[in-house]
Amino acid sequence: MAGWGWGWARAVRGLLLDVSGVLYDSGADGGAPIAGSAEAVRRIKASGLKLQLCTNETQATRADFVRKLRAMGFDVSVAEVTAPAPAACRLLQERGLRPHLLVHHDLVPEFAEIDKTNPNCVVLGDAAEHFTYANLNEAFRLLIGMEKPVLISLGKGRYYKETDGLKLDVGAYMKALEYACDIEAEVVGKPAKSFFESALAELGVPAEQAVMIGDDIVSDVGGAQQCGMRALQVRTGKYRKVGTVSLIF
Amino acid sequence: MAGWGWGWARAVRGLLLDVSGVLYDSGADGGAPIAGSAEAVRRIKASGLKLQLCTNETQATRADFVRKLRAMGFDVSVAEVTAPAPAACRLLQERGLRPHLLVHHDLVPEFAEIDKTNPNCVVLGDAAEHFTYANLNEAFRLLIGMEKPVLISLGKGRYYKETDGLKLDVGAYMKALEYACDIEAEVVGKPAKSFFESALAELGVPAEQAVMIGDDIVSDVGGAQQCGMRALQVRTGKYRKVGTVSLIF
Repeated sequence: MAGWGWGWARAVRGLLLDVSGVLYDSGADGGAPIAGSAEAVRRIKASGLKLQLCTNETQATRADFVRKLRAMGFDVSVAEVTAPAPAACRLLQERGLRPHLLVHHDLVPEFAEIDKTNPNCVVLGDAAEHFTYANLNEAFRLLIGMEKPVLISLGKGRYYKETDGLKLDVGAYMKALEYACDIEAEVVGKPAKSFFESALAELGVPAEQAVMIGDDIVSDVGGAQQCGMRALQVRTGKYRKVGTVSLIF
Repeated sequence: MAGWGWGWARAVRGLLLDVSGVLYDSGADGGAPIAGSAEAVRRIKASGLKLQLCTNETQATRADFVRKLRAMGFDVSVAEVTAPAPAACRLLQERGLRPHLLVHHDLVPEFAEIDKTNPNCVVLGDAAEHFTYANLNEAFRLLIGMEKPVLISLGKGRYYKETDGLKLDVGAYMKALEYACDIEAEVVGKPAKSFFESALAELGVPAEQAVMIGDDIVSDVGGAQQCGMRALQVRTGKYRKVGTVSLIF
């Protein structure tokens, strides 16, 4: 394998794994695991490699997300999940921000400890069916009425794959609000550098000894590279081009 | 007035008027005329100036739109309205495009003569409450599935003012689809140069003898300037900055 430049692989001590499109395809029916992925997680753990799930999932609390994954046969715990909502809560508390939430109803409990009265920012997640015109317009009116509008977006993905096809992700709605208000959102979650740094800290492995595995060339691969990590793009999930598994480093 | 550089005004023979935010504020209740505007239209016509309404209205057919304006006291006819939907129909027919329509239900009759089977493009209008997640996702899936996605947007406005406050306009949703599909929309309607040229042709007055009056600095003022016209920005409608009526030329 030396000719392929895989020598670095011997130094790898930990993996960051994207979840949707890598371990399973989400869906209104609860989603379905991707063939072989639960077994792969077991083998990774058995091999002694450290493992952390690094997800932009914002349709459920981490506890509910882990419950769903475990029911599908994945041996994972809440501590092994790095997700945008807890990162957003830390940022809100550090800066004294009180959010108006435009997120999926099932994510709201993650913000239970956060003061949401008299909002001075908007937090945007993958609200899916809750992205009605009325809800998006409410967030727009709040932002346009602020002296300095603050929009925090839990990711900037374009779309993701569910069991019944591709779905618009939070990034599309972030762009709509950015354009309407002539502002730039702050992204919490992949591909933000600080988010990968948190995931690496939770993994307990430095960037040069970790590999990110995902299906999104921007959020997963690009974000990991910005952090000095190597990254693998899988051909499952939203991957659409013809080719083999891409190794990008 | 010479010191103010108004000498050119003597050469003016025709006016293009934006409608929403200039003549009336739209709204779920049908909207309300802006004080003095119906009288202004009467005086413009009585003075011998030619008049053409140049609107990005896409929530109703021109016939219904004129019916509403006449009920509010405006002396206008369908022939005096330049609107995006008829311009889009000409473009679709010229290029053999069959649209999937993501527009307000009340606009659909404007496309009655257009073949909409097996769509090879998406036409986006100000669908307002019809901008559900499901509807936007359907347009996204059609576009992402096309070899060369064609997105035609009836305007690119950020927002407009209704009687109960500001509302997100079609431009925000155009940006969402542009980002999700990594494409650029073709804009029919203001500020497209071809749209102003159509309006001038219908007015029957060359650009240098016409003035555009609107409340949108990009769609109205910028678009008119690109066509060699002078433009006035009013302080009604969505106008938000403190100042006097702006003369931009």
